[in-house]
Amino acid sequence: MSRFLVPALGGLAPYVPGEQPQNREYVKLNTNESPFPPSPKVLAALNGDEAAKLNLYSDPTILPLKQAVAQTYGVEKGQVFVGNGSDEVLGFAFLAFADGEHPVRMPDISYGLYSIFARLFRAEADIVPLNDDLTLPVESFCHAGKMVALANPNAPTGIALSLSDIERIVSTNREQVVLVDEAYVDFGGETALPLINKYDNLLVVRTFSKSRSLAGARIGYAMASEGLIEDMERVRNSFHPYNVNRLSMLAGVRAMEDAAYFEGCRRRIIAQREETAGELKALGFYMTDSRANFLFVKHPALTGSEYYTRLKEKGVLVRYFDAPRLKAYVRVTVGSEAQMALLVEKTKEILREVRA
Amino acid sequence: MSRFLVPALGGLAPYVPGEQPQNREYVKLNTNESPFPPSPKVLAALNGDEAAKLNLYSDPTILPLKQAVAQTYGVEKGQVFVGNGSDEVLGFAFLAFADGEHPVRMPDISYGLYSIFARLFRAEADIVPLNDDLTLPVESFCHAGKMVALANPNAPTGIALSLSDIERIVSTNREQVVLVDEAYVDFGGETALPLINKYDNLLVVRTFSKSRSLAGARIGYAMASEGLIEDMERVRNSFHPYNVNRLSMLAGVRAMEDAAYFEGCRRRIIAQREETAGELKALGFYMTDSRANFLFVKHPALTGSEYYTRLKEKGVLVRYFDAPRLKAYVRVTVGSEAQMALLVEKTKEILREVRA
Repeated sequence: MSRFLVPALGGLAPYVPGEQPQNREYVKLNTNESPFPPSPKVLAALNGDEAAKLNLYSDPTILPLKQAVAQTYGVEKGQVFVGNGSDEVLGFAFLAFADGEHPVRMPDISYGLYSIFARLFRAEADIVPLNDDLTLPVESFCHAGKMVALANPNAPTGIALSLSDIERIVSTNREQVVLVDEAYVDFGGETALPLINKYDNLLVVRTFSKSRSLAGARIGYAMASEGLIEDMERVRNSFHPYNVNRLSMLAGVRAMEDAAYFEGCRRRIIAQREETAGELKALGFYMTDSRANFLFVKHPALTGSEYYTRLKEKGVLVRYFDAPRLKAYVRVTVGSEAQMALLVEKTKEILREVRA
Repeated sequence: MSRFLVPALGGLAPYVPGEQPQNREYVKLNTNESPFPPSPKVLAALNGDEAAKLNLYSDPTILPLKQAVAQTYGVEKGQVFVGNGSDEVLGFAFLAFADGEHPVRMPDISYGLYSIFARLFRAEADIVPLNDDLTLPVESFCHAGKMVALANPNAPTGIALSLSDIERIVSTNREQVVLVDEAYVDFGGETALPLINKYDNLLVVRTFSKSRSLAGARIGYAMASEGLIEDMERVRNSFHPYNVNRLSMLAGVRAMEDAAYFEGCRRRIIAQREETAGELKALGFYMTDSRANFLFVKHPALTGSEYYTRLKEKGVLVRYFDAPRLKAYVRVTVGSEAQMALLVEKTKEILREVRA
């Protein structure tokens, strides 16, 4: 930290992304990426003449991608916002709706960036603990009297809220924005999308990074009332009007259009999740009821740190969170059939080793 | 604006990007893009297998691109920052070094986003007017006692400051960050880069959008003391650790490596600028001494608005700024030989029309 950084950011602890070691090839099950490549239609579009046009700016209205999202989900294009990954979308939402006078209520266990955004933009993070079983105390988010930020399904637990619980939270905070981060919703959660025409305070945030196999293209989006989207656009146009690059915009349009590929990928992930869950349970693991593309698991014979470290030694990367309520667990991305077979095999080896 | 937007952003007037009409093909000379495609090495790299890996996140350390920049400019990789376009780099700099207690001094005529960033992050924009001839009053930026933001060459005038003037400003503000935005420096300005090892308060911001033909890939960078770069990284990792996407990172590396292509492009633009400047002067135009990839021109027989409108009717887009001190001018991007020949031809037609 230099002497020039504004003092308000002095204690800011940045987000720590999942490790991306360069020294060895790992089976990467630590950052919830899709094990499948993007849609062939994406590849066909990118391998064409588009790269030769990179000397020209991207479309600052992002209209083709907004239209593709609007058409897919049956909303108006004025109800769609697009950003450079859902991290940017979330950041813009905090910038638009929270500040020193406008705090944000959020769970103690959720996506790590929420509390960092609050700090970055000088807003108080009003942190409410999850229940002991890691479910959300819904009542504590009703009548919050301040902005609410939630992930549904939650991360890293994968636990989903019902649509009726989401509606209770949204309907009892009509004068505040309720941000529902649905990064993982395509793997079995109930989307709050049908509520955006009923509640103008609901902001649904989504990503192309998981179910649409485009983590490396950085595309996130949000759907909400036109008023909220206008506010988000005001912030975007005051920060970076060309935030989505040309190739990603094209990739996003093609990925959104290829509904069949998307369906196939998400169904395979859901089926694989259930299969791996069964195998790990048979080995004595406890896990949350994940509706996401990851499992959140713990074993009585292993600390989270131990399981993580031993898997890494065997070439499998998973995510471990060194926090009091999370340290018994690791989060395992649901990868391909072959990747999950390897995970189970290495897990059996580890259990034999620790019991020896 | 919805009732949810924080009141502090209520009066915020977002940046208005240059128009990108979709209804007709124009000769686009309004957003300072390169008329040349990216380096063939960029195209070769993008048309390979990289797109198939877009299901994986980009490298959050951006190390390959930092290394390519560091090697090109002879600095350490810890002195390099990379962002999603230089707009994001500039935004992060305002977020790191300015806030309600830390104002920013800037010229009244410069890149429009500086004052918008100040407003967005609650910092006072302390605006100093340029001299009547649109040169910078250097003394007014010495001993500023607050962060300074400048573009060199300036936009939309193209007028450049000497290295010794920049050093006077940097050396008399040692307890404040001096941000020098060198988006256009490759077309004839003097870079402040040699000063970063001498002054730890100097932040030099650059872009791949102009001289490296990659506006559509969104890559900006900054070079500074390691302390300033650490502060910028703290903000980046608190906002969007995966801010640079996979294909853009690769494109940036290849573009930085292809020094010969870069040299060729910038020399052609400089030569074309001088040629077009001569032709327009012969037609009675006055212009600033532009060291950028654009000309800032006015004619006694035409208002800026009139020249802009008549060119647009003839299929040529240039940029017009409806501001008191700028409205006599238009800004014309230096395009290809054919594009500039067309500009001159259409300009002659317009001058005949207004004199008829």
